[in-house]
Amino acid sequence: MLTSQPIDLQRIAIVIQYLGTNFHGWQRQAQHRTVQEEIEKAIASIVGSHINLHGAGRTDSGVHAAAQVAHFDVASPLPPHKWAPVLNTYLPKDILIRASIEVDSTWHSRFSASYRRYRYTLYTEARPNLFIQPFCWHYYQAPLDESLIETALEPLVGKHDLSAFRRANSKRANSIVEVQAAQCNRDGAFLNIEIQADGFLYGMVRLIVGMLVQVGTKERTVSNFTNLWKNQLREQVKHSAPAQGLCLLRVGYPDFAVPKEIWYDTQPKFVFGE
Amino acid sequence: MLTSQPIDLQRIAIVIQYLGTNFHGWQRQAQHRTVQEEIEKAIASIVGSHINLHGAGRTDSGVHAAAQVAHFDVASPLPPHKWAPVLNTYLPKDILIRASIEVDSTWHSRFSASYRRYRYTLYTEARPNLFIQPFCWHYYQAPLDESLIETALEPLVGKHDLSAFRRANSKRANSIVEVQAAQCNRDGAFLNIEIQADGFLYGMVRLIVGMLVQVGTKERTVSNFTNLWKNQLREQVKHSAPAQGLCLLRVGYPDFAVPKEIWYDTQPKFVFGE
Repeated sequence: MLTSQPIDLQRIAIVIQYLGTNFHGWQRQAQHRTVQEEIEKAIASIVGSHINLHGAGRTDSGVHAAAQVAHFDVASPLPPHKWAPVLNTYLPKDILIRASIEVDSTWHSRFSASYRRYRYTLYTEARPNLFIQPFCWHYYQAPLDESLIETALEPLVGKHDLSAFRRANSKRANSIVEVQAAQCNRDGAFLNIEIQADGFLYGMVRLIVGMLVQVGTKERTVSNFTNLWKNQLREQVKHSAPAQGLCLLRVGYPDFAVPKEIWYDTQPKFVFGE
Repeated sequence: MLTSQPIDLQRIAIVIQYLGTNFHGWQRQAQHRTVQEEIEKAIASIVGSHINLHGAGRTDSGVHAAAQVAHFDVASPLPPHKWAPVLNTYLPKDILIRASIEVDSTWHSRFSASYRRYRYTLYTEARPNLFIQPFCWHYYQAPLDESLIETALEPLVGKHDLSAFRRANSKRANSIVEVQAAQCNRDGAFLNIEIQADGFLYGMVRLIVGMLVQVGTKERTVSNFTNLWKNQLREQVKHSAPAQGLCLLRVGYPDFAVPKEIWYDTQPKFVFGE
């Protein structure tokens, strides 16, 4: 005789890629298509009831993710590694789950994370190119000096109050951020700006990039840029870079059992020519 | 008093990029969305009547183009170089006109072309990646030896009857094709196969790549592959590579006044890592 065994609650962590173009960001909200809601709907299709999905961080409307991380608690006979391929059969084309694993019940996608890393991509050729358009800010109005941008980024590394780069409806208690890395490099016609921090303020990367472009075009000096955030001159931070150039590159954890090739560097860069 | 000057008929050539994903190919057809129809509709929105657009070549459903070329005859006060930006304001997001110029009335996008060049991209990592998925054949079932594929491609260069690689409803009078270049190279997890010829048979590149994959996995020898087309064994050519990996890279002309950077190599390749 078969007896039905009670199934223990498991905590499942998932690594998620999405194209932000047709989403109103990560977080579930009434009347808008969001990534969280699509994945929660897919989970509900499998288990038959709503389960909350907890993301490592919210991304704004139009922002992409190469390796967002989230977790949920579920009692299901599905083996942990099967959640990724099974969820993918329910998900729309602009979301892909790269991996699923069981994690400890004390592990939390948001609170256990030691860093998030974002990449912002600018394309500097005069003429638009259809293939890269959804992933870049097409900036060709003036030449950009990447060494000036790099110089302006350096002092950001460290623990600072970055309220100058914080949009109004941020929910964080304070604006203290520990920036772990801040780099700019040029790859042909592309400029990649990467910032890694313990956490990000609402709108932070796009405000930083929006103002850095003025440094790159020499409309603003490096010291003036540094002055903006050192003196919290929020009212002078008036330019935000467009969403489509931004991608959540990865979320880092002190202990994460997913192999590095699945989550570490999964947003491709573009090259032309041989 | 203003007099209305008669406007001469001009022949306008345009360089076009499109993402094939949501098109039933280039050629206008009833009840399906096609690239030709979308551009003809945009032209009609500007001039107020239907004008035929002549493409350099037809691409299949799902096939992309980095630099397709087409021309049309029009009597309009719009300066030739303005057609590109003005058409772009009418076109959907998956079509972009890169340039427009006036050409001689004897110049023809199809008949004046000296070659077409296609690129086929394979992605060989086991795990899918959302960012590259629309532009690659995700082939990970067995390792692919690119040197075997390269060896199989070499004898194709030259003038041959390639009826082995011709799908049934081809409209060409014969199957003689002059292949000008045929190459395969690996870029990390990507395999790029490029073929340049004076013209292409219906389904040709996808049939060649479908069979070359068998060479790469050693299911088929190089000489067996060569035997297929030398002896026109069409019935043994059973595998066609999927459309999304194929891109019309460019169309070449002995005389073409559009600067090379606009049309020569405008499909980006992907790279991961620094």
